[in-house]
Amino acid sequence: MTKEGLLVVISAPSGTGKGTLLRLLEESSQRVRLSVSATTRRPRGNEVDGKSYFFKTVEEFKEMVSGDKLIEWVKYCDNYYGTPREHVENLIKEGYHVVLEVEVEGAMNIRKKYPRSVLIFVLPPSFNELEKRIRSRGTEGDDAIRKRLETAKREIDYISRYDYVIINHDVDKAVGDINCVLKAEGLKYSRNKDILTGIGGSF
Amino acid sequence: MTKEGLLVVISAPSGTGKGTLLRLLEESSQRVRLSVSATTRRPRGNEVDGKSYFFKTVEEFKEMVSGDKLIEWVKYCDNYYGTPREHVENLIKEGYHVVLEVEVEGAMNIRKKYPRSVLIFVLPPSFNELEKRIRSRGTEGDDAIRKRLETAKREIDYISRYDYVIINHDVDKAVGDINCVLKAEGLKYSRNKDILTGIGGSF
Repeated sequence: MTKEGLLVVISAPSGTGKGTLLRLLEESSQRVRLSVSATTRRPRGNEVDGKSYFFKTVEEFKEMVSGDKLIEWVKYCDNYYGTPREHVENLIKEGYHVVLEVEVEGAMNIRKKYPRSVLIFVLPPSFNELEKRIRSRGTEGDDAIRKRLETAKREIDYISRYDYVIINHDVDKAVGDINCVLKAEGLKYSRNKDILTGIGGSF
Repeated sequence: MTKEGLLVVISAPSGTGKGTLLRLLEESSQRVRLSVSATTRRPRGNEVDGKSYFFKTVEEFKEMVSGDKLIEWVKYCDNYYGTPREHVENLIKEGYHVVLEVEVEGAMNIRKKYPRSVLIFVLPPSFNELEKRIRSRGTEGDDAIRKRLETAKREIDYISRYDYVIINHDVDKAVGDINCVLKAEGLKYSRNKDILTGIGGSF
């Protein structure tokens, strides 16, 4: 594996089944790696440092932010979460397609810093289905549900800023679609400007 | 099949094995159709009108040219060859990906008229191999061989104007690559601006 991999950003509103999709995507191809986030949240159950997350103290995390060691970061429910730059860039240099699952603002920031990144938006089979899934989740109050629906709606407003849109009707088909997108992106001339050298330069 | 198909332009220098590639590509997918050219050349052997070519008299062909009924046309060895617009546009409306095999100038003209067309350049595994294949072809004289090599070289100079580049190492892999490109193109947001309507409009 010599050729540089792709930086792949996947956004999917809550209720699209992105957890399963991302797991199957990683399992489907030896070239795909999900990026591991840094977080200040405490490890839960059998979470492994460096695999589930890179677990950091708040001080360590803040140092990463000030040292520009994160591609993007957010604070969510009193904990910090971020994407470690070196981890991602090293995997890409080794030839892996690194998948970042981030919300829409994060995706826009990544596109600015990495114009060659590939942005994929995953949609649920229908809005009715999305609403049903969000409403049926656990024992959340009406307020929490309304907030989730509003967030999903706001996120979908960003769809036109993405390169590809995939509807998650069937998770295996969606994984196949994403793998095709990655292969096709790798075949773009703009990513293969040295291709003639590779086949012997010229006559 | 309701969704509009793609206009796909494939260019490949002489000696890349494009004949086999295109035949296998058409066989590989029910959605792919090779466009049928109009020609003033006489039918040979078991060629069928409307399948191998649309056979035309010179007068009929010139009328097609003056009536803007051809997407592109060339004169080659005293015969005219062209791509009938209506034939191609109807297949695309029916949802087929229509593949046009044209040389580089033709490809550039098609891109101008159809900015949403997908341009794919197919390369041989190596320049040495290409030269060997051209040299080993039949009993052509040195001049004819030199001319073919020069043409191939001139065509390859256009490679940066194409969207995708595919090396024909293995014809089945190359067909798979092209099918992936077509699927990925069909997943672009720019080709699916009405996608939200399709899944129920909004909340």
